[in-house]
Amino acid sequence: MSLAPSKTAPGRFFEDFRLGQTLRHATPRTLNAGDGSLYSALYGSRFAVQSAQTFARAIGYSAAPIDDLLAFHVVFGKTVPDISLNAIANLGYADGRFLKAVYPGDTLTAASGVIGVKENSNRQSGVVWVRTRGFNQRGEAVVEYVRWVMVRKGNAEAAAPPAQIPDLPAAVAPHDLGAACPPLDVAAYDFALAGSPHRWGDYATGERIDHIDGVTVEEAEHQIATRLYQNTAKVHFNQFSEAQGRFGRRLIYGGHVISLARALSFNGLANAFHVAAINGGRHVAPLFAGDTVFAWSEILDTAVLPGRDDVGALRVRLVATKNRPCDDFPLREGEGYEPSVVLDFDVWLLLPR
Amino acid sequence: MSLAPSKTAPGRFFEDFRLGQTLRHATPRTLNAGDGSLYSALYGSRFAVQSAQTFARAIGYSAAPIDDLLAFHVVFGKTVPDISLNAIANLGYADGRFLKAVYPGDTLTAASGVIGVKENSNRQSGVVWVRTRGFNQRGEAVVEYVRWVMVRKGNAEAAAPPAQIPDLPAAVAPHDLGAACPPLDVAAYDFALAGSPHRWGDYATGERIDHIDGVTVEEAEHQIATRLYQNTAKVHFNQFSEAQGRFGRRLIYGGHVISLARALSFNGLANAFHVAAINGGRHVAPLFAGDTVFAWSEILDTAVLPGRDDVGALRVRLVATKNRPCDDFPLREGEGYEPSVVLDFDVWLLLPR
Amino acid sequence: MSLAPSKTAPGRFFEDFRLGQTLRHATPRTLNAGDGSLYSALYGSRFAVQSAQTFARAIGYSAAPIDDLLAFHVVFGKTVPDISLNAIANLGYADGRFLKAVYPGDTLTAASGVIGVKENSNRQSGVVWVRTRGFNQRGEAVVEYVRWVMVRKGNAEAAAPPAQIPDLPAAVAPHDLGAACPPLDVAAYDFALAGSPHRWGDYATGERIDHIDGVTVEEAEHQIATRLYQNTAKVHFNQFSEAQGRFGRRLIYGGHVISLARALSFNGLANAFHVAAINGGRHVAPLFAGDTVFAWSEILDTAVLPGRDDVGALRVRLVATKNRPCDDFPLREGEGYEPSVVLDFDVWLLLPR
Repeated sequence: MSLAPSKTAPGRFFEDFRLGQTLRHATPRTLNAGDGSLYSALYGSRFAVQSAQTFARAIGYSAAPIDDLLAFHVVFGKTVPDISLNAIANLGYADGRFLKAVYPGDTLTAASGVIGVKENSNRQSGVVWVRTRGFNQRGEAVVEYVRWVMVRKGNAEAAAPPAQIPDLPAAVAPHDLGAACPPLDVAAYDFALAGSPHRWGDYATGERIDHIDGVTVEEAEHQIATRLYQNTAKVHFNQFSEAQGRFGRRLIYGGHVISLARALSFNGLANAFHVAAINGGRHVAPLFAGDTVFAWSEILDTAVLPGRDDVGALRVRLVATKNRPCDDFPLREGEGYEPSVVLDFDVWLLLPR
Repeated sequence: MSLAPSKTAPGRFFEDFRLGQTLRHATPRTLNAGDGSLYSALYGSRFAVQSAQTFARAIGYSAAPIDDLLAFHVVFGKTVPDISLNAIANLGYADGRFLKAVYPGDTLTAASGVIGVKENSNRQSGVVWVRTRGFNQRGEAVVEYVRWVMVRKGNAEAAAPPAQIPDLPAAVAPHDLGAACPPLDVAAYDFALAGSPHRWGDYATGERIDHIDGVTVEEAEHQIATRLYQNTAKVHFNQFSEAQGRFGRRLIYGGHVISLARALSFNGLANAFHVAAINGGRHVAPLFAGDTVFAWSEILDTAVLPGRDDVGALRVRLVATKNRPCDDFPLREGEGYEPSVVLDFDVWLLLPR
Repeated sequence: MSLAPSKTAPGRFFEDFRLGQTLRHATPRTLNAGDGSLYSALYGSRFAVQSAQTFARAIGYSAAPIDDLLAFHVVFGKTVPDISLNAIANLGYADGRFLKAVYPGDTLTAASGVIGVKENSNRQSGVVWVRTRGFNQRGEAVVEYVRWVMVRKGNAEAAAPPAQIPDLPAAVAPHDLGAACPPLDVAAYDFALAGSPHRWGDYATGERIDHIDGVTVEEAEHQIATRLYQNTAKVHFNQFSEAQGRFGRRLIYGGHVISLARALSFNGLANAFHVAAINGGRHVAPLFAGDTVFAWSEILDTAVLPGRDDVGALRVRLVATKNRPCDDFPLREGEGYEPSVVLDFDVWLLLPR
């Protein structure tokens, strides 16, 4: 007698999503300093605020905060069993805002609301939009973002809900930035120790920065990272089934690429210590173990934060490529992306003024 | 002049073991939250009790405990230099009981008593049974188990002690379960957050569960894990010598397979938060890097714990395979095991009632 | 418009170094217990003092200290962007002294003074000597050492400063040892728990020890380790560019080799719990992923520490090889090193008397 189907989670199919539905995700996770160590060892991040208690406290944080993207990936990971276990593709992000600094010892949970659904014309799949919030142990939202994914239908004949596509901002407004950044004492911010003299005011719209360095990804690294986030998406872990799949191999979690690019961006953006918002993002092409990731940035915009003279915001397009240096800033080719581009990410970063 | 032989530890040979002998093992080890992070990143475990301080405290733990198998592997690792450095095979486990929760900050030590010896008829090797206990810094036993290993003789001519085979229970008795689990407030156990609504009473003897997911193992992963446990068994680390050995390659530590299977079992046994006992276990076949591990479980028995209505126990056979999904529950074939089976493990797990 | 050159750090070229110059390095780093876990998992270190709070406290440490070499690598890593980003080779170490125990929670920073420069006769490159100091959050020096590197010139025509080669001691003097080791209560040092009965007095000058075990290195392991130290040297991470380079592949950070050899040396030197000084060291040949590292030691000298009867010092030559066991103590061959030798390291180690 097998009762297996009743106990294991097959994941939701497109027809299982309902507009307005709220999904409370499993597995609360306490982040500790060891998670920070591991994150550091996986990406080589060098932003001083997250790296050193002394630096963080001197400028006004109560402790060295957990890296913004580590918190993001942990929240994202919780959503996978409920949202994207049967996803064909992770299509995009929008309206992502970091709302509260996360510190070692904080416990994260997450919940998502379904804010859009649209069946594909082939009726085999559809797109689902969710707004996900991550919370700390006090119930305070620490991060919030929208993502949309293409999800398989379990039964092509199943009726689909009427299409509803949410309105999403092209970028987070400057007055919505900075909630996760305490008031800073910029006089105490040691630029030499941080690795660069360049403040917010030293960057100009249109400026492009080649981050120069490249880093090759290994299977063990992306698997360790993805499990650190308790992300269970099958395509990252199962060579037996992926060998028979679309690419013949394990696909690297898109968030791993984002963190690699962010760490590479230190060389040129060393004082951009905080990701305040994710305006948008696309995983343009898949990345595989053995590939070498490069990155470049373009300053899309600059903004002051209402009522704050400690930090300013740069809107940055962070582009990552594979197996191709970025000294000529590859992005578009013809109608689409230059073939080496794997990530086109749009964020607001905070820097000291 | 080389005095090397007097300073390095060659490990015990079969003829060096004496019935009744007690071996106090080297290298005390303080476990901290970072060990938990690394364990999490190596296996992707999602049991809420070990993952979140808030969840563990809400139900009655003083903190999120260290994963039971992490504590087990650390204790096991200490025994290797004294017991199995010259082992040919790790034959089995029995009578394993978790006696006290292990928390970050606890320091583990271990000692073993020799409870059985039997020379093989070829006189080249013999089997040694040891009962190992792991202790915390207060001298309290946290785990206890019997294992037996086949050990080479250093000198085939050496006299062997008279054979003595210990009596071992087929399974730990239900009244011996639960010492490491504090009284729980099940009303505070959040089943949605834990990832499944299924309580102890929802499982029935004979029920089989395919845990569905597969995970591919990399050399770096099993080496990092095995070193985390300070396990020094040579076969896991030395490609130079293993290239000339039986398999031509490094063998993955059996405990790594147990932890992979345990993590996979979350999908179907999400509320089985505590391994209370190891009734038995066999590493049926070797696992190598590149192999993909799948797992399934069978509920062998259910039991109440005398005097407790908070938790109940499931006796579970946890089977792991390599490169073969488990939807048809592979186990036996002819006289032996189905060829893909790598682990046949028998545990008591606790779940909320 | 690209302003990239003004924002990214290209690293110093030989002609950019000035005798007497002081370089304050970026990225302060707080070390926590999780860094210790990761270090442990990367090397399998088993020295009891660093492994267990109970053991360390019993003998007189305020807590289990961070492994000496982990602190060293973290300090070293900070110097890379300022000193060796354009290095051709890391030529040697001298006069390295550990001055203060580092504990979880300490934040390390580093600064280097240029103490020597010498242009090569080809005028394409030169050798730079720096004395680097690592500090904790109280500004106390925790480690100090000299290293010299061969650095490319950015412009072969650039004028070179007059040659100045520093006088360096062949070995640190015994009266300069032990600052990082608190007074120990040797009666509380549990030799069984530490893994060996051999004290300082049991070793004799000229004694050689084969550490027996071998460990194979994976790409993911050395990359994770090197990033843990925030070491950004390109040759360790970028397969795309290294494929076109001298070796066709990523080179393993020399410090990774040192830590592997140190961990292997436990088998024969289990009570040599503290690296008190680095007298010298050469990375004789490159190591690559897939290679198996072996090690052996020779006791070069023994010394008492003035005013201390708790610990004594052994001057040890620690030699590591690749893909070659060390039972015959390989070192020299003809004019040079035996071809399998990768590391020739000269340290003072402290052991209980």
